[in-house]
Amino acid sequence: MLVIYLVAITAEAMSGALAAGRRNMDIFGVAVIAFVTALGGGTIRDMVLGHFPIGWTQHPEYVYLVISAGLLTTLIARHLLRLKQLFLLLDAMGLIAFSLIGCNVALQLNYPLVVVIISGMLTGISGGILRDVLCNQVPVVFRRELYASVSLAVCVLFLVLRAFEVNTGISTAICFAGGLAMRMMAIHFKWRLPTFSYQQRWE
Amino acid sequence: MLVIYLVAITAEAMSGALAAGRRNMDIFGVAVIAFVTALGGGTIRDMVLGHFPIGWTQHPEYVYLVISAGLLTTLIARHLLRLKQLFLLLDAMGLIAFSLIGCNVALQLNYPLVVVIISGMLTGISGGILRDVLCNQVPVVFRRELYASVSLAVCVLFLVLRAFEVNTGISTAICFAGGLAMRMMAIHFKWRLPTFSYQQRWE
Amino acid sequence: MLVIYLVAITAEAMSGALAAGRRNMDIFGVAVIAFVTALGGGTIRDMVLGHFPIGWTQHPEYVYLVISAGLLTTLIARHLLRLKQLFLLLDAMGLIAFSLIGCNVALQLNYPLVVVIISGMLTGISGGILRDVLCNQVPVVFRRELYASVSLAVCVLFLVLRAFEVNTGISTAICFAGGLAMRMMAIHFKWRLPTFSYQQRWE
Repeated sequence: MLVIYLVAITAEAMSGALAAGRRNMDIFGVAVIAFVTALGGGTIRDMVLGHFPIGWTQHPEYVYLVISAGLLTTLIARHLLRLKQLFLLLDAMGLIAFSLIGCNVALQLNYPLVVVIISGMLTGISGGILRDVLCNQVPVVFRRELYASVSLAVCVLFLVLRAFEVNTGISTAICFAGGLAMRMMAIHFKWRLPTFSYQQRWE
Repeated sequence: MLVIYLVAITAEAMSGALAAGRRNMDIFGVAVIAFVTALGGGTIRDMVLGHFPIGWTQHPEYVYLVISAGLLTTLIARHLLRLKQLFLLLDAMGLIAFSLIGCNVALQLNYPLVVVIISGMLTGISGGILRDVLCNQVPVVFRRELYASVSLAVCVLFLVLRAFEVNTGISTAICFAGGLAMRMMAIHFKWRLPTFSYQQRWE
Repeated sequence: MLVIYLVAITAEAMSGALAAGRRNMDIFGVAVIAFVTALGGGTIRDMVLGHFPIGWTQHPEYVYLVISAGLLTTLIARHLLRLKQLFLLLDAMGLIAFSLIGCNVALQLNYPLVVVIISGMLTGISGGILRDVLCNQVPVVFRRELYASVSLAVCVLFLVLRAFEVNTGISTAICFAGGLAMRMMAIHFKWRLPTFSYQQRWE
């Protein structure tokens, strides 16, 4: 799980660096956006749950990892498009790992189940939301093919398996298999949630 | 007060859903923006005051309510314009209820009076600010006819009545009457605060 | 140090008010943006470090000061361009003071050194980031001539001097001298960090 987590924050840091590059930021901006994308989700979760000290403050190595990953991305960016499939796979694994970690943190703090699910989703998607807000755009997670829904499905599946007292290792494996399958099919078949358009002017 | 609070978060969730619809979000985005608009103000207040656990984490039913209200809004949106007057009334009641609740939370934590007022206003208006930031626009509360000012006036009025040891029930009623009157007159007469325009370039 | 801090939050409040004016906000919006720019950095730092109660909640006079400074700015804005040099000097002193204060808060809470540096930078620059997000623009700190880098350099210098057990007063003076020199040279010679541009489309 730790390995998957490290891969996940690396992949998120890289996606943050690319977003910063789309806004022509300087390398400091790249480092900040990489950091926020990778570790911001867990930060917001811990701030909302009152869970101090926040995870990365006790693991300086995570900070070095994500900033290095972000800066390295500026050097290898031109080659990344070729690795798109790998990148999407790592990103999906990260989403699932983040969601499961978020659920576990809230469970340990004895929050009600709906808060456990929200905690998983916050961990999974709010880093990307922060990234998009800082890059001044509407968060893609609110508009893209199933992404947040995968996080939701994984969190619910995890809680269901837990209610049936399935062994943690098996349950984690099932969540990864199910979540990855769902995410990859969503990308492949361009599944989308129905959108809501509302253009009436009130004034 | 609880009934008013529930009406308030419902109205706020609906306003969030409409804002999400203006950005063509999918139904997941609608649910998130509804949630953030309705419960984000209290969340930010609790995070700033260090008041854990945050309110809605102990009341899962609020979470279900606001998400349901947000999703339901997508179905009835076309009819809402007709209910504009009712909606504005509920929204104003929500603003006042949020402001009073925010004041009370800070009072219980023994914060100084100016923090009590800020707590009331944070609860009243920061849900809407989060909604606008996530929808990538300048928060309307910084530009619209008196809205935040109503929250400020209600908080100050509440503290003045409290200093005179007015009975809580009576004081709450006076705050609602005064706040509603002020808000409705502000809408009707298009009262606005003076604006500040500054266009000098420094570089 | 307290005098410098008060000058710093005043200068930050004024920069917030000017940014609000560029968006034609009303005076309430001006007050909020001034408040957030001046005190938001410390607020985010305290929220991330779990350091409650947050500083300004125990010092109502800071709140009055920054709101007054913001509102006063609307009256004297037309004359400020003439004071540009003074303003940039005060702003740089504020950046350094905020950074040192942020480092000290994290040191007292026994956080690891990299968190101490992040705490200093959060205090120094996140008020301006919040200002820009609320004004719906990409934070200038991610794109401008060396600003965040000055904060980083000051934090590192401060920790190095501390490791050599240099007397606090002397160390503070050296940080101010070094930070101011770096900032002023960055402005004068238009030093910039390299930027990262990435325009490949993935879809």
